[in-house]
Amino acid sequence: MQTLTVELGNRSYPIYIGEQLLSRPELLRRHITGRKVLVVSNETVLPLLRSSIEQALEEYDYRLLALPDGEQHKTLASLNLIYTELLNNGYDRHCTLIALGGGVVGDITGFAAATYQRGVHFIQIPTTLLAQVDSSVGGKTGVNHELGKNMIGAFYQPRCVLADISVLRTLPPRELSAGLAEVIKYGLIHMDDFFEWLETNYSRLLNLDPQAMSVAIEKSCRCKAEIVAADEHEQGVRALLNLGHTFGHAIETFVKYQGWLHGEAVGVGMLLAAEFSQRCGYLSGKDVGRIKALLENVHLPVKTPAGMGAADFLQLMARDKKVKDGAIRLVLLERIGHAIISDNYSGAALKEYLECLQQTR
Amino acid sequence: MQTLTVELGNRSYPIYIGEQLLSRPELLRRHITGRKVLVVSNETVLPLLRSSIEQALEEYDYRLLALPDGEQHKTLASLNLIYTELLNNGYDRHCTLIALGGGVVGDITGFAAATYQRGVHFIQIPTTLLAQVDSSVGGKTGVNHELGKNMIGAFYQPRCVLADISVLRTLPPRELSAGLAEVIKYGLIHMDDFFEWLETNYSRLLNLDPQAMSVAIEKSCRCKAEIVAADEHEQGVRALLNLGHTFGHAIETFVKYQGWLHGEAVGVGMLLAAEFSQRCGYLSGKDVGRIKALLENVHLPVKTPAGMGAADFLQLMARDKKVKDGAIRLVLLERIGHAIISDNYSGAALKEYLECLQQTR
Repeated sequence: MQTLTVELGNRSYPIYIGEQLLSRPELLRRHITGRKVLVVSNETVLPLLRSSIEQALEEYDYRLLALPDGEQHKTLASLNLIYTELLNNGYDRHCTLIALGGGVVGDITGFAAATYQRGVHFIQIPTTLLAQVDSSVGGKTGVNHELGKNMIGAFYQPRCVLADISVLRTLPPRELSAGLAEVIKYGLIHMDDFFEWLETNYSRLLNLDPQAMSVAIEKSCRCKAEIVAADEHEQGVRALLNLGHTFGHAIETFVKYQGWLHGEAVGVGMLLAAEFSQRCGYLSGKDVGRIKALLENVHLPVKTPAGMGAADFLQLMARDKKVKDGAIRLVLLERIGHAIISDNYSGAALKEYLECLQQTR
Repeated sequence: MQTLTVELGNRSYPIYIGEQLLSRPELLRRHITGRKVLVVSNETVLPLLRSSIEQALEEYDYRLLALPDGEQHKTLASLNLIYTELLNNGYDRHCTLIALGGGVVGDITGFAAATYQRGVHFIQIPTTLLAQVDSSVGGKTGVNHELGKNMIGAFYQPRCVLADISVLRTLPPRELSAGLAEVIKYGLIHMDDFFEWLETNYSRLLNLDPQAMSVAIEKSCRCKAEIVAADEHEQGVRALLNLGHTFGHAIETFVKYQGWLHGEAVGVGMLLAAEFSQRCGYLSGKDVGRIKALLENVHLPVKTPAGMGAADFLQLMARDKKVKDGAIRLVLLERIGHAIISDNYSGAALKEYLECLQQTR
């Protein structure tokens, strides 16, 4: 087992990475306060991991709550299911919430913990690769609004993150690929050597080789933990983690969070960011080709949704949280391993690129 | 004008107290960031203050939103009205929200500010006495759940509080009395000399004498600011501010937030806390009489709602946020001017007191 720390003063917390961690209840016990625990999961994950989590929590007064599965359920309504479960069962503010699931479960549960009785403890047990390398680390919590993704939320840090590599065996291949999109992201924004390692080792990851997976998760979490420690509330450098996300969120909103996984939308979004970076004179055509090849090699889509035009992109991107005084700030690539935040590009060029994209579909 | 500061490090902020403050736009201007401002008010208050706030904000790109009036609308649904207004009008995370209203408007707007795009700036312009002396100061924000009051929320501090005494002239007499309940609370928990001052000066306050009102608001806000600075997240001493609130919240939940103002429920709650303190051997019968007399003098109710029995109280009080491992912690009075937090009382005695209360109605 490896342990990383997200350094945030008195809100610092460990990320445990390894195999069979759910079978080590002492890890959870270190971070649970009070007697009462609510495990929030979803209808897909809970049946697969019910016996493991029940064993791990047998000392506690716990309940299990399964939310409906899917990004379309990351809503105020699902949040209210958690509040109602807590209130109906007399949970006070000394309870602990555990998120057992992917990014959707983690984001909703974290926001419920941030806001139930003005804040209770919570623990992240991410069960998808995407959640293990990205959404469970860093304290971004929240839900979607029908007018935009992640528009409602809070920064609220967990007490620990338990990334159990073994649970990834329960993951459908599409979810694994979606997670690899975020893994590739860390190579693109910050670590060209890791990007090269991924170009060599992607098939080991697709085959769930434990040693390779451990490297990929540890590298990703370390990169994220460093960036979050430097800029918890995304006043600056943390925005680099949104590479591909401004385009990606527009895609997810356009398809109403249905039919596309978050990582798939981010994968296409990173390719769009790379292609537009090339147009802006940053990235070489050769490197755009390497990025596209790696995305295809891990079985990620590289085309935007049918029927989604330049106007759709521009309208939806204008709602991004990084917008300041009307200007869409984009994360662009100067080169592989070095991302920048830019509003120093031509809006006309962006429009032209997106129109061109539509024609070549 | 008087200026107090709530000392919270880099989240410190001023409370401005005085007459005609809404006519001094430079006060607001100091604390607004960005161009876009959303004023959240309610259907009762907004018509009365529309022209004043419009003049104060004429330099900004502002909108006004009137929520339905009343504690029964302090819900996730009202919160969602604010999110939708913000998203429909392209508000980004550099906007400022202004709460223009009583405690309900302040609590919902503050929670919207805490959670819109994970946090935007907000300003409190409390328009009721209760909000000026209590709910606008200290950063408690949130909404009710049908199973309990203030069960969903966050600690989130405003950038400033603007307590304009002149707007209290728009207040119905019942709202004024409700506000005086919280003013009396500060005397009871912390300042016996202020309680005595209130016994002498209550009629000046009922007549909105500006000099007396200025003293009452300043004393109350100073007391609250000191307690909040010492214990922002209510780990200890801040719980004293809940004198009367555990009983009061039970009353509000029992009547479904209808027909009773928050201050009225707190007023009765303080009398119950005083009477039970006497039973526990703390407070003298004479002092209970003084408390009851002052509540009656400012036209506050001193009887619990018809049909509300001991079982109702105990069940609803068990949901209080101060409950720890099943024990209801109460704020009791050792004497006038000195409150304590106690779980060191007999549960049977509490039950007996509440049953006796029911029989003497």
